[in-house]
Amino acid sequence: MANIFSNIPAELANEIFEDILITDKLRIERIVSKGQTSPDTGWYDQSENEWLIVLSGYGVIEYINGDQVTLKQGDYLNIKAHEQHRVIATSSDEATVWLAVFY
Amino acid sequence: MANIFSNIPAELANEIFEDILITDKLRIERIVSKGQTSPDTGWYDQSENEWLIVLSGYGVIEYINGDQVTLKQGDYLNIKAHEQHRVIATSSDEATVWLAVFY
Repeated sequence: MANIFSNIPAELANEIFEDILITDKLRIERIVSKGQTSPDTGWYDQSENEWLIVLSGYGVIEYINGDQVTLKQGDYLNIKAHEQHRVIATSSDEATVWLAVFY
Repeated sequence: MANIFSNIPAELANEIFEDILITDKLRIERIVSKGQTSPDTGWYDQSENEWLIVLSGYGVIEYINGDQVTLKQGDYLNIKAHEQHRVIATSSDEATVWLAVFY
């Protein structure tokens, strides 16, 4: 057993990406952000589908068509493979904990 | 977009099981409990592996070998296929929201 909110440093120079579970069919990952965003240039263009939930803090996702979605605690969505997106804001006051299921 | 904590009735006569995402490779399910436990007889004996996290409240899982694990907010574990288990307690004060990934 482990806890999704454990081992979060008070200051985060960079986002933390950690695999929680890896099988041949899916990958569960914890992402911890604190004010970070995607790199200024480029978009995530993933070969896998991604089911994503925010468990603390908040994050704002922008799609390449300009749509923006703010995810707060408990909000979840599904990002299809090759649906280009980026993170344009995350909470700087508290850690944003994302749980992502890639499949 | 949806929220994992939305649409939870104040009183729960029975546990709620809701599929969030179904593909041929995995199923993501929300389970909401409020004081309920597994049926008095029998054990869950699942053909799929289950990755499980508690997002609010708490639940106590017992394995057939007698081991007991209390899962509180943020706690997660992996239950392998055919690892027989049951839920012997859940919070009666607040809803226990479980997120389960079957794979």
